[in-house]
Amino acid sequence: MIYPFLLPDMKAEFKLRLEKVRNAMAEGDCDALLISSTTNLFYLSGCVFRGYLLVMPEREPVWFMVPPSVAPENAPDVFNIHKPEVIPAWMEQHGYPIPSKPGLEFDDLLYSEVERLKSLFPGREIKNASKIMRQARMVKTEYEIAKIREDGMHQARAYSQVSSCFQPGMTDLELQIEVERILRLEGCLGYLRAAGSRMELNLGSVISGENADVASPYDFAMGGGGVDPSLPVGANGKTIKPGTSVMLDMNGGFNGYQSDMTRTWYLESISEQARKAHECSRAILRELEKIALPGTPISTLYKRAVEMAEAEGLQDYFMGHVNKAKFIGHGIGIELNEQPVVMERNHQPLQKNMTIALEPKFVIPHVGAVGVENTYRVGDNGLENLTVFPEELQEL
Amino acid sequence: MIYPFLLPDMKAEFKLRLEKVRNAMAEGDCDALLISSTTNLFYLSGCVFRGYLLVMPEREPVWFMVPPSVAPENAPDVFNIHKPEVIPAWMEQHGYPIPSKPGLEFDDLLYSEVERLKSLFPGREIKNASKIMRQARMVKTEYEIAKIREDGMHQARAYSQVSSCFQPGMTDLELQIEVERILRLEGCLGYLRAAGSRMELNLGSVISGENADVASPYDFAMGGGGVDPSLPVGANGKTIKPGTSVMLDMNGGFNGYQSDMTRTWYLESISEQARKAHECSRAILRELEKIALPGTPISTLYKRAVEMAEAEGLQDYFMGHVNKAKFIGHGIGIELNEQPVVMERNHQPLQKNMTIALEPKFVIPHVGAVGVENTYRVGDNGLENLTVFPEELQEL
Repeated sequence: MIYPFLLPDMKAEFKLRLEKVRNAMAEGDCDALLISSTTNLFYLSGCVFRGYLLVMPEREPVWFMVPPSVAPENAPDVFNIHKPEVIPAWMEQHGYPIPSKPGLEFDDLLYSEVERLKSLFPGREIKNASKIMRQARMVKTEYEIAKIREDGMHQARAYSQVSSCFQPGMTDLELQIEVERILRLEGCLGYLRAAGSRMELNLGSVISGENADVASPYDFAMGGGGVDPSLPVGANGKTIKPGTSVMLDMNGGFNGYQSDMTRTWYLESISEQARKAHECSRAILRELEKIALPGTPISTLYKRAVEMAEAEGLQDYFMGHVNKAKFIGHGIGIELNEQPVVMERNHQPLQKNMTIALEPKFVIPHVGAVGVENTYRVGDNGLENLTVFPEELQEL
Repeated sequence: MIYPFLLPDMKAEFKLRLEKVRNAMAEGDCDALLISSTTNLFYLSGCVFRGYLLVMPEREPVWFMVPPSVAPENAPDVFNIHKPEVIPAWMEQHGYPIPSKPGLEFDDLLYSEVERLKSLFPGREIKNASKIMRQARMVKTEYEIAKIREDGMHQARAYSQVSSCFQPGMTDLELQIEVERILRLEGCLGYLRAAGSRMELNLGSVISGENADVASPYDFAMGGGGVDPSLPVGANGKTIKPGTSVMLDMNGGFNGYQSDMTRTWYLESISEQARKAHECSRAILRELEKIALPGTPISTLYKRAVEMAEAEGLQDYFMGHVNKAKFIGHGIGIELNEQPVVMERNHQPLQKNMTIALEPKFVIPHVGAVGVENTYRVGDNGLENLTVFPEELQEL
């Protein structure tokens, strides 16, 4: 077991993150966090273990390992416990004040898990630690951005092999399976980490033809119907037809961070309208890359994208035709769906080093979905693309 | 979108399941369930949608669809709503009594989701619907057993291709990737549904050599260390060495139900002790197949397995060597980890048509994990294997 938070060359990185979390705690009026979700443990420790992490404003963080996870030798601030119920006694014994407004992860843990942890702090006002952590994680460190960029490079290498693994007569699902294999061989860890309980998917989706407009109960922009009612999302198993588009929105996940990149292929030919919509998606990205500056209200991005689609007469197809998604992008990092959500009613200003995936897509009836998605970091002069790969419509 | 609960030939099946759920509600002193987890919606509807299902003892169940899910036309008892907060008014309007002990899914939903739903039933005693549903789902219907059997057949077809996709010099992960592809081509949906928040994994694991004894923070019997601290489970990316075992514990998931099947391969040669342990695993399964009758306490299975390992002098290697799992099996169905858990302190009697995966495995130092796992249904005369595939150690 590797514990990155103990590595000397990672100390500065985790100190930075801790500072961000403490700032968010102060903003959220919270004087302790007890963290145990995979995502937030990974953010603050660089690894996943079984146990708890206690963060307080003026104390060193304390790691509590629960078997089978074990505290390494000679690691101060890392302790072995058997259950979280011993934590209050540990705190008292070690001179830690009992927090008056402790935070627990309301949006990351099951109801029964939070209820169990609430009993450690009787009579206290319990805050939502998930909200605080989401806030802290929204603006990335340089290290995190480098991880996402690395992820994007792996994903680009996988995407460059898509055309060569297509065989005439393939279904969307058969193509997806070959792309999954390529991603895995490229180092994709094979697990898509997402916030909330509204995401169930393997490594992403391949959507072709009419399937682009089939609603999915999950939170994906262009869901697709899937092949079985137990998992109604993504490829539907039908043969890819000439004249239809094939949109690949396969997620990365090579190093604990994710990049989100969509590219579009077509079989044999594709309509002029679809080409026009695809170029409109690219033009929207070029425009947003320029106007998305630190301080720009996020809603401005959404509105500008809608305006540009309307100017081309493509508003009926923008972000879906029968079913329309109400966002054009989302934060991304450890989880696929982080803050901020790029939608009309989000007036928050962009901040430097936010990382956002922008996906202005169109669904053209009888053709399918077209468009491009890139993952960006917000820089001083606009967006920097972390998912560099040709954006043109490509023939399969 | 297909709604299996509306299909005429499925009506009897869902009536059966509803009856089981109502019995569990009566046992659990609960007069209404409001269900919204993927797993339990699928159990009671045969599909996943966005919305809520209201189950009461003496009323027809009511389905509430939330966009993008939509009620089909001419479907009585299926209604469109925009948010769960309208459900109490709907109930009043339609003459449904306000329940005094409604159940919400404490172990399936996030804390914030349950808190939101609790506000629909102010002042009421809220019961744990997850516990009730787990109880109802523990004993399967014939239809469900047929689905698991079908799943096992797909999985067996995939396993029959393992040796042919091995290439000398491969890592455990490279072999796993080829097996994942075969499973997906065979129809595996590619999403492992598991209860709780302690499971993160792609489609299963391939464990070779020393990696068999590396602890994972997840709830897997033989975890493995993985290749990245963000996902410390499974294959570790090392080349498969001659003289080591390669244990495949890849999960199915072809039709909404899962089967769990482990088989063991080796490269070039394997020690006599490992062969002996593998045969002991098979002997344990043969014995349990006979003694596991309706009414047998589940702890009896665990104890008998430990006794048989001890009789062969293999107790130090049983269910792990450095890290030991404390169970030898688990219920399985829609989720990988259903009730009952086959462990020492579970004295519940087996019931006819429970489906359980039994995995008496050994970790032999320097060799790796050996043993077999099958998924069984409990029948009147013992266990029926639903994962029929040769059990012998096989050379890669």
